[in-house]
Amino acid sequence: MKLDALFLDTLKDIYFAERQILKALPKMTKAAQEPKLKEGFTAHREETQGQVERLQQVFEILGKRAQGKTCETIHGIIEECEELLEKAAEPSAVRDAGLIACGQAVEHYEMARYGTLIAWAGVLDKKDVVALLQANLDQEKKADTLLTQIAGSVNPAAAKVG
Amino acid sequence: MKLDALFLDTLKDIYFAERQILKALPKMTKAAQEPKLKEGFTAHREETQGQVERLQQVFEILGKRAQGKTCETIHGIIEECEELLEKAAEPSAVRDAGLIACGQAVEHYEMARYGTLIAWAGVLDKKDVVALLQANLDQEKKADTLLTQIAGSVNPAAAKVG
Repeated sequence: MKLDALFLDTLKDIYFAERQILKALPKMTKAAQEPKLKEGFTAHREETQGQVERLQQVFEILGKRAQGKTCETIHGIIEECEELLEKAAEPSAVRDAGLIACGQAVEHYEMARYGTLIAWAGVLDKKDVVALLQANLDQEKKADTLLTQIAGSVNPAAAKVG
Repeated sequence: MKLDALFLDTLKDIYFAERQILKALPKMTKAAQEPKLKEGFTAHREETQGQVERLQQVFEILGKRAQGKTCETIHGIIEECEELLEKAAEPSAVRDAGLIACGQAVEHYEMARYGTLIAWAGVLDKKDVVALLQANLDQEKKADTLLTQIAGSVNPAAAKVG
């Protein structure tokens, strides 16, 4: 397999993952109690929509059809999140702490994948692609930092009620 | 559910994940062609053994039996890695580039989980636990940085042969 084929394969993986996250975020938003967390998830859903569109542009630049490929990792993360919402439904501060953990697992997976894709696009000399992927990576990093900030108030509250 | 119960649950998740990685690393080491990558995986296997032992110490401090809990995310990451080794078996430089991507997905998952566990242990006032988890997190971050460095020589080689 050539590196550009492996690149395309990994692109399909993250494209699938982003669309799964797009579906999962409204459920996470609904479950979140802390207003900042609710807002954060809502804003990140909009960002994720933009990220999906950027990935579609990447497929277009490559002259390929935008197509996902089942990503078992994102299925695993979302499954763990759903399990959390069942078992840690109450109190809400603990649920919020768990939701932040889920969100950060998602962000880290995306950071790993975009990091790889950007490195590969670089050596494959696809500058336009690098810029699009970098825009997505920057948003994921910011989303992760925001979740860490929100955890700064959610976690102490969760420790008190728990 | 109390935050300390959610903490224990997440600890079981990463304990399971670390032991799965311990099993997967020899296969990744064997598949790696680039000597630095082979060495990196070998060294990280030894580190992972130490991390498992630190997690066992955390269970001990908490007065709980060291016990894993199926982590679907790590199953997903390892499954994607095995799939890669099948479809991108040759040329070896592309396989190495893919192995680095697998390794970085693992590291990022662990970083997310340790980050969460450290934050929770902090608010739950478990300082000894924080120190042990922080030691693991520091190693994961270093392993991720090392993989990025190795990618700096592997990726251009993969682009040439591919």
